[in-house]
Amino acid sequence: MRKVFVNIGLSLDGFMAPEGMTLAHWSQPDYKDWGAKWGAMMGWILKLQYFREHLQFGSGGETGAVNDMLRHTMERSGASIMGKRMFEQGEASWPENAPFHTPVFVLTHEKREPWVRPGGTTFHFVNDGPESALEQARAAAGERDVRISGGADVVQQYLSLGVVDELEIAMAPVIFGAGRRLFENLHDPMPQFRIDAVFHSPHATHLRYVRA
Amino acid sequence: MRKVFVNIGLSLDGFMAPEGMTLAHWSQPDYKDWGAKWGAMMGWILKLQYFREHLQFGSGGETGAVNDMLRHTMERSGASIMGKRMFEQGEASWPENAPFHTPVFVLTHEKREPWVRPGGTTFHFVNDGPESALEQARAAAGERDVRISGGADVVQQYLSLGVVDELEIAMAPVIFGAGRRLFENLHDPMPQFRIDAVFHSPHATHLRYVRA
Repeated sequence: MRKVFVNIGLSLDGFMAPEGMTLAHWSQPDYKDWGAKWGAMMGWILKLQYFREHLQFGSGGETGAVNDMLRHTMERSGASIMGKRMFEQGEASWPENAPFHTPVFVLTHEKREPWVRPGGTTFHFVNDGPESALEQARAAAGERDVRISGGADVVQQYLSLGVVDELEIAMAPVIFGAGRRLFENLHDPMPQFRIDAVFHSPHATHLRYVRA
Repeated sequence: MRKVFVNIGLSLDGFMAPEGMTLAHWSQPDYKDWGAKWGAMMGWILKLQYFREHLQFGSGGETGAVNDMLRHTMERSGASIMGKRMFEQGEASWPENAPFHTPVFVLTHEKREPWVRPGGTTFHFVNDGPESALEQARAAAGERDVRISGGADVVQQYLSLGVVDELEIAMAPVIFGAGRRLFENLHDPMPQFRIDAVFHSPHATHLRYVRA
């Protein structure tokens, strides 16, 4: 059975991104110190062998259990869904060979033809809401799973729809104080999860919840 | 060296208490369903042998690693600090033999003589701010540690003062959607923690951070 999953990094105080980390300030990581804050939260992933290979950052890097988890996350993903803001930030940051290698469905009001990138990533622009995007992503994913990539508002929409089967959070011991919260704007009935597994590393606590 | 520590239960979405869990609705756990939500978050503690013994709920109960953690938390506490709201809720709920058995310093604007309870708990009402309460609690704790008991606003004050040595969170896999958030109203410089230990149980993930 194909799963719908979320796999994200989170600060200890519940933010997916620090204040100031927006497209308008993308080239100014000193703005509200967003670059250093983001780095403190996600630095662990940049060191992983699989991440480096995947983003063509070069060879080498850390192997082991966390690297294996990341590989599994990427290999299980048959399609991704993301919001317009995340797409625009990525459009400004990803290498030409965008790091998905699957169809990606972008929730947006913009009408735009599919954007085919080298390496197997094609961005499809969906104008008729999150349920439609999920249906298209499930069909595109084939035997693999659908990843809700973000940002926070998109994760919230799918949590509220009750369709998230697996919620995986890498919680780093950093406190941002402000930014884009993961858990807000949810409405009843609240999604129900149980703890499935916890993996502990010095840099982040990997929490895995499955739908109860 | 005596430590200043926080040990609290938290929902997955970062709330220390669900919406509606206020003194005004203390006898109405159906109000916004706060009783069931609180129970879903903290039910695990009610089953522990040490908790049952400590609150004179009767004999029996679960033993094991989580029970031992709870015993350690209580036995290391030489004094507690709490806010006026938590005190008022407790005043309406605790047995006569209040479950602290140490001095407790209550941050309040109310001027009131110390309130001595059977069993070794004495509530002291502190009118001159959190630093003064901490100084008094350190002196009273002797060789033991000082616990910042809550509520959320009091924990926030001590986090912002940068004096919290150890932050212990029992994070339950429940989503409240609204309530009293632990992590908000913090200001720079943000407190800095590193992961010390994580203990995984089916009911809650016990996260322990120490000051970096």
